[in-house]
Amino acid sequence: MSELYDKLIPHMEKGMALGTALGMLQWDNETLAPEESMQYMAKVLGILSGEYYKTTVNDDVKALLKELSVKEENDKLDFNQKAIVKKLKKDFDIMETIPEEEYRAYNELVANASNIWSKAKNENDFKYFAPTLEKIISYQKKFASYRQKDGKALYDILLDDYEEGFNMKLLDEFFGKIRKEIVPLLSEVVKHNDTIDKSFNSLEYDTEKQKEFGHFLAEYVGFDFKKGVLAESEHPFTMEFHNHDVRITTHYYKNNLESSIFSVIHESGHALYEMGVEDALTQTPVGGGTSMGMHESQSRFYENVLGRSKEFWMPLWDKLVNTFPEQLKGVTLERFIRCINKAEPDFIRTEADELTYSLHIMIRYEIEKLIFGSDIPIEELPALWNQKYQEYLGVTPPTDTLGILQDVHWSGGMFGYFPSYAIGSAVAAQLSHTMKEKMPVADYLKEGNLVPIREYLKDNIHKWGASKNTNELLLATTGESLNADYFIAYLKEKYK
Amino acid sequence: MSELYDKLIPHMEKGMALGTALGMLQWDNETLAPEESMQYMAKVLGILSGEYYKTTVNDDVKALLKELSVKEENDKLDFNQKAIVKKLKKDFDIMETIPEEEYRAYNELVANASNIWSKAKNENDFKYFAPTLEKIISYQKKFASYRQKDGKALYDILLDDYEEGFNMKLLDEFFGKIRKEIVPLLSEVVKHNDTIDKSFNSLEYDTEKQKEFGHFLAEYVGFDFKKGVLAESEHPFTMEFHNHDVRITTHYYKNNLESSIFSVIHESGHALYEMGVEDALTQTPVGGGTSMGMHESQSRFYENVLGRSKEFWMPLWDKLVNTFPEQLKGVTLERFIRCINKAEPDFIRTEADELTYSLHIMIRYEIEKLIFGSDIPIEELPALWNQKYQEYLGVTPPTDTLGILQDVHWSGGMFGYFPSYAIGSAVAAQLSHTMKEKMPVADYLKEGNLVPIREYLKDNIHKWGASKNTNELLLATTGESLNADYFIAYLKEKYK
Repeated sequence: MSELYDKLIPHMEKGMALGTALGMLQWDNETLAPEESMQYMAKVLGILSGEYYKTTVNDDVKALLKELSVKEENDKLDFNQKAIVKKLKKDFDIMETIPEEEYRAYNELVANASNIWSKAKNENDFKYFAPTLEKIISYQKKFASYRQKDGKALYDILLDDYEEGFNMKLLDEFFGKIRKEIVPLLSEVVKHNDTIDKSFNSLEYDTEKQKEFGHFLAEYVGFDFKKGVLAESEHPFTMEFHNHDVRITTHYYKNNLESSIFSVIHESGHALYEMGVEDALTQTPVGGGTSMGMHESQSRFYENVLGRSKEFWMPLWDKLVNTFPEQLKGVTLERFIRCINKAEPDFIRTEADELTYSLHIMIRYEIEKLIFGSDIPIEELPALWNQKYQEYLGVTPPTDTLGILQDVHWSGGMFGYFPSYAIGSAVAAQLSHTMKEKMPVADYLKEGNLVPIREYLKDNIHKWGASKNTNELLLATTGESLNADYFIAYLKEKYK
Repeated sequence: MSELYDKLIPHMEKGMALGTALGMLQWDNETLAPEESMQYMAKVLGILSGEYYKTTVNDDVKALLKELSVKEENDKLDFNQKAIVKKLKKDFDIMETIPEEEYRAYNELVANASNIWSKAKNENDFKYFAPTLEKIISYQKKFASYRQKDGKALYDILLDDYEEGFNMKLLDEFFGKIRKEIVPLLSEVVKHNDTIDKSFNSLEYDTEKQKEFGHFLAEYVGFDFKKGVLAESEHPFTMEFHNHDVRITTHYYKNNLESSIFSVIHESGHALYEMGVEDALTQTPVGGGTSMGMHESQSRFYENVLGRSKEFWMPLWDKLVNTFPEQLKGVTLERFIRCINKAEPDFIRTEADELTYSLHIMIRYEIEKLIFGSDIPIEELPALWNQKYQEYLGVTPPTDTLGILQDVHWSGGMFGYFPSYAIGSAVAAQLSHTMKEKMPVADYLKEGNLVPIREYLKDNIHKWGASKNTNELLLATTGESLNADYFIAYLKEKYK
């Protein structure tokens, strides 16, 4: 028992409560709030962010964290408490460098930015978004510069925030492999695309029926509706308040069957991670997933490794056909599987197949490197974006809506986040490799029994929350640190 | 310009932000949150309520409000600022008497109570709810006793909170008239009920179509979807965050056409009030409706005075019939109007006609009087409830679900609130009387033009927010204070 730790609890709980409120307002804005609300809610978000700041960064907390980090005091803590103190200390060290007024103004800016981006995207008007984007970038550069040490690059600082230990050196290597192996593989694969007729996917699919099937599918992979919600938003996402309240969203398109199916499986993968955290960590600073990269590994594992396999669909195929008998008339399971794995260069990241997906990420990575490593004018970004799409994917987006405006991330200030998607793919492939050595994954899928798979992930990854980091979890589960070769091998085997 | 007032602004804004967050969590719990969430969210609500308390009740605010209430300083303020200071002072004087720890514990209790009540209601298990209800009553008694002066009755203190100037003396008089005039009228009316065949109302009505019609109807009466949301919940309600974000809910029943139609019109009436508040008051302490009674007058005016009239339905009838052609085959507009105005004693308040509605309220009023005026044991309440239903309405609820467990209010600690519904009916009748002298209301309804009606209410009532109280608004608009005779006359004319 540590008296000092007990003193930390009220600060932690107040931070948790304010964080929950901020999250709820954000959730509401993305899923439900009426058009005119956000300009007023931005003020609320600004004020609450200021309070959050004051709760997290103050002399009392600073002194407590300092004392609790000293070995003698630290030894009094149990495993979870140690993890909590470590996490709080890390967050504190970041937050402390930012003046409260700037933190609050930045949060108000970002609260408004999502709607500005959304309007710009809908109206294909990059210029409308550009001044906001410029301000966000300038804040991000400033915030990173506050903790710049030993000439460390600004972008490396951001990368490390999303995934401990990651930097441009590692990612250049990673994407180097991707460029070397995947680009030629893609051009090879594309040559044989003519034989895959995917036209059924763009027939008309009743939205209500898609909703029912989406709900069924989420439940099928293990999403617990007593602990979660499936709603709709422009851009699918997962948001957790605690392990007993995890929300996912999807977007139903009338003329695209695949889109909502795979976004539901993807977001369910995220949700299973959060729902699987053990109750000892509920509503604590380590009560959520450990990193964005590990999170993406779970979503991509469910979406791609499981969800795009033939075995996964074997027990489900009849149900899907019965839900849409006219549209899927004459479509065989074999053809469906080929279609949902068809690799085809296109503009939109979220709709991309596994092979091209990493290239979409690589483009964003290279542009972010440039933004944070130079003073490239904002107005030059759309052309740069299109040029890179032409270079790596052989296509040029006809509009900015289909180009640089497609992703919500930058409007939320999430620079350095995109590489997590690539890390996620690599972690998923590595975990999958180990899991297949330990259990008959394909057989379980065929039987429609996803419990052993979910339990394995829960025991090895989910239950730990953020009490261990990505590399600790990977080492304990697979016996080695992150190794991108499993991902390259996985893609090669799949597409060759 | 007042420097003191400027110093008050940050306190006010922080209170507004925390209040908004609390409201959002409550909205989410009522409309969307998964089953297991609330027990954890209650902790968040408890902490944020504590913060709200600290923001509202502290020495700085106390000193500022005191100085700003002195004539010399008060004269420096404009009309809205004066109203804001007055409102804050009133709230402060109430809150100050409650110790923070009790305020916080009470809010946590109430946050959990809604789900406990809901479970008890679903399972017809009053005993499951009783201990919670007992705790809430005991808190309410204690809180009221903290500001008891000159032997004022506890229940009078609560009544005054919901409607300034109201007390048991006035309400005993009001309900005395109701009892004397309405009870005999009802038994007269019921004798002729056999000729009204309402069976079409309980045929099967597709929920999706009801939703579409509900959405249309809200828009028809003037609900602005750029400033609002229509969602679903167990019990219909309205919640506003500010005049650009007003939410209403309804409940769609497969075998009840009328229910959602009139709850949508009712809640839209509430929403129009909030949406009509002028922008100068947005997100200030007087940015919402002035009292529950005035609020109910607006909802009941739209639901009953307008919404149950033949003129209202003349331009809408074809659309309703076309939405449900099979179910409404052979039903004439005349019959529909007779049906939606059929007076019939039944168990459920929210489904009650205008004539019996006041009796439902009278029963709750009498029971609340007893609760706060005596030490009646909780376990005796269900029998008392049923006995009063038998006495005034001639029916005995077969279950507590249809009896004492039907209303959410007590689980939210809202004692003294129910009489607002009766005050609302009286205000609506009085306003309607004046309005009909000023403009051809029936003609506007026939033309499907609700704009002049809405504008009249906006100019005379809505735009003022809470900067004037009910009696000030009534005096300015109708030339006299609240007068229950208009309501009695309205009912007599309608049902005779």
